[in-house]
Amino acid sequence: MVSIIVGTNRADSKSSALAKIYRDGLLSRNVESQILELKDLPSDFIFSECFGNRTSEYQELLDQYIVSAEKFVFILPEYHGGFPGIAKSFLDSFSGELIKGKYAALVGLSAGRAGNLRGLDAYAGVLGYLQVEVLANRPKLSQIEDLLNGSDLKDEEYIARLNRQMDQLVSI
Amino acid sequence: MVSIIVGTNRADSKSSALAKIYRDGLLSRNVESQILELKDLPSDFIFSECFGNRTSEYQELLDQYIVSAEKFVFILPEYHGGFPGIAKSFLDSFSGELIKGKYAALVGLSAGRAGNLRGLDAYAGVLGYLQVEVLANRPKLSQIEDLLNGSDLKDEEYIARLNRQMDQLVSI
Amino acid sequence: MVSIIVGTNRADSKSSALAKIYRDGLLSRNVESQILELKDLPSDFIFSECFGNRTSEYQELLDQYIVSAEKFVFILPEYHGGFPGIAKSFLDSFSGELIKGKYAALVGLSAGRAGNLRGLDAYAGVLGYLQVEVLANRPKLSQIEDLLNGSDLKDEEYIARLNRQMDQLVSI
Amino acid sequence: MVSIIVGTNRADSKSSALAKIYRDGLLSRNVESQILELKDLPSDFIFSECFGNRTSEYQELLDQYIVSAEKFVFILPEYHGGFPGIAKSFLDSFSGELIKGKYAALVGLSAGRAGNLRGLDAYAGVLGYLQVEVLANRPKLSQIEDLLNGSDLKDEEYIARLNRQMDQLVSI
Repeated sequence: MVSIIVGTNRADSKSSALAKIYRDGLLSRNVESQILELKDLPSDFIFSECFGNRTSEYQELLDQYIVSAEKFVFILPEYHGGFPGIAKSFLDSFSGELIKGKYAALVGLSAGRAGNLRGLDAYAGVLGYLQVEVLANRPKLSQIEDLLNGSDLKDEEYIARLNRQMDQLVSI
Repeated sequence: MVSIIVGTNRADSKSSALAKIYRDGLLSRNVESQILELKDLPSDFIFSECFGNRTSEYQELLDQYIVSAEKFVFILPEYHGGFPGIAKSFLDSFSGELIKGKYAALVGLSAGRAGNLRGLDAYAGVLGYLQVEVLANRPKLSQIEDLLNGSDLKDEEYIARLNRQMDQLVSI
Repeated sequence: MVSIIVGTNRADSKSSALAKIYRDGLLSRNVESQILELKDLPSDFIFSECFGNRTSEYQELLDQYIVSAEKFVFILPEYHGGFPGIAKSFLDSFSGELIKGKYAALVGLSAGRAGNLRGLDAYAGVLGYLQVEVLANRPKLSQIEDLLNGSDLKDEEYIARLNRQMDQLVSI
Repeated sequence: MVSIIVGTNRADSKSSALAKIYRDGLLSRNVESQILELKDLPSDFIFSECFGNRTSEYQELLDQYIVSAEKFVFILPEYHGGFPGIAKSFLDSFSGELIKGKYAALVGLSAGRAGNLRGLDAYAGVLGYLQVEVLANRPKLSQIEDLLNGSDLKDEEYIARLNRQMDQLVSI
């Protein structure tokens, strides 16, 4: 199972739209996936689900989206020149043992030019620390406001990059 | 005014103990400072204080600790090989205009060897994006469990590094 | 004295053209500067000037461009997604004591979109290790082939960013 | 074929000693490897083998160590808080097409505590840009002077980490 993590809690985000495009792309490759929107986490999870605290509901969520998955896609918009804090807080909320040795694909989005390059590098560093293998191919979608309109991703180069990443993710 | 930000919401943290040492060190240099513990933020601030939402209580907190301060100390423990997500979520919760052009000193803490080097680099990248000048001198306190016992920091080399950083922070 | 370091040994580089623009900009602020082109280093300096080897000519070069300068501008083009190796080898060729406590401004150039963001971050990390204060404002000039034609930098936004950086560099 | 790259041109380096340990470890897994010492590159290769220049001898070296290899081990000592410039210059000296899609394992060495963590992160970023898959497991050998005496690596934990990395490298 592939879990696609929308790395922001913003409502109606471009990242969310991209996650659906990604899910469709995987489905066209006969691979099922499930989307976890961080906006659906308990609003106080940083406090209620850390440092040894654990509700059964949150454990079920982790079981479904982390423990049961072998591969992950993290969609990470750029906030203040890096990944959203909540995307790291989500990783902080569980033991690295749950994700160790698994695979991840990263996609960056930004309003500006760099496509969240710095955020992807830093997030990959953390995932690497957790012994997650992160694909080298990391599409960085810049100027996303022009690029992504509803479910329509316009740029052919970006579409090709995402397709190559999907091909690789399903083949490992 | 200097704001010392404890970059975790863990209770009774080593970072909190270090913040108090830092405050005392600044006081001995005749500089007043105030400590903000991220554990004292509203437990749902990632949801309630982002994307245009703002309570008056939170605005007052930002006025006190960000707007009124010219210099910042961020105490950042290492979580999963990087900074705590909450420390970035705190930055995400306000406009970069509030902190632009100000100064920051970073201190890293870790149970392991690297003293949160990767977390400090990534956090400095974000602060730099926000046009905050980050001091080059960034003490990285490794094996903190042995090092910091209550309010007693044992290692002479670390104490000297912190003192140099404090000297520099007060002089700019 | 300000030393402007052209961080590549490519002949007739865009970085070299930008260094001259930078020198003119400093001069218009009544600040003199000197340009060091890494292409003018001895072609075997990585071998002949490292690990305790030192010719008197190279020592004179270091005296002029590093020891005598208080501020530095590093112009760093993007090679393979990072800074040119030679730009780090140059730092490797002398003791950190020679540059400790001084100031640096970084400018990135790239053919692609990111303006050498990753290279600037990594280089700033190294300079920070050497206790060099690196300005937060780091212009990243992307798609430089379109941007810089001879001595003519076209983009108003980039010109404004460089001007802000120059203002800051001369004022510290 | 696995190429083990000693990422420094220092003579009799600890990195060189570790490369031999690595080669023996691979051999005990029935995998042959070849060691490339960057100290054996032409002393002026940054000038003579870049920007379109290419001697037949250097092309043969690239054919042997890069083109003919599918997997790479980069042994990277820490110089001034990052990787040696020469290790990046070596990558700069050839087209990314020669190494694209291949695999790399990184090992860091340092006199200090961090085991070249920052250098490994930055080098992994560059390799990722070149579409090289870099193993998440990156042993960081700190305080190497105490650790590595001749061909004898003392620390059991480090030996175990290197063994896990070797196991993974041969299995992909």
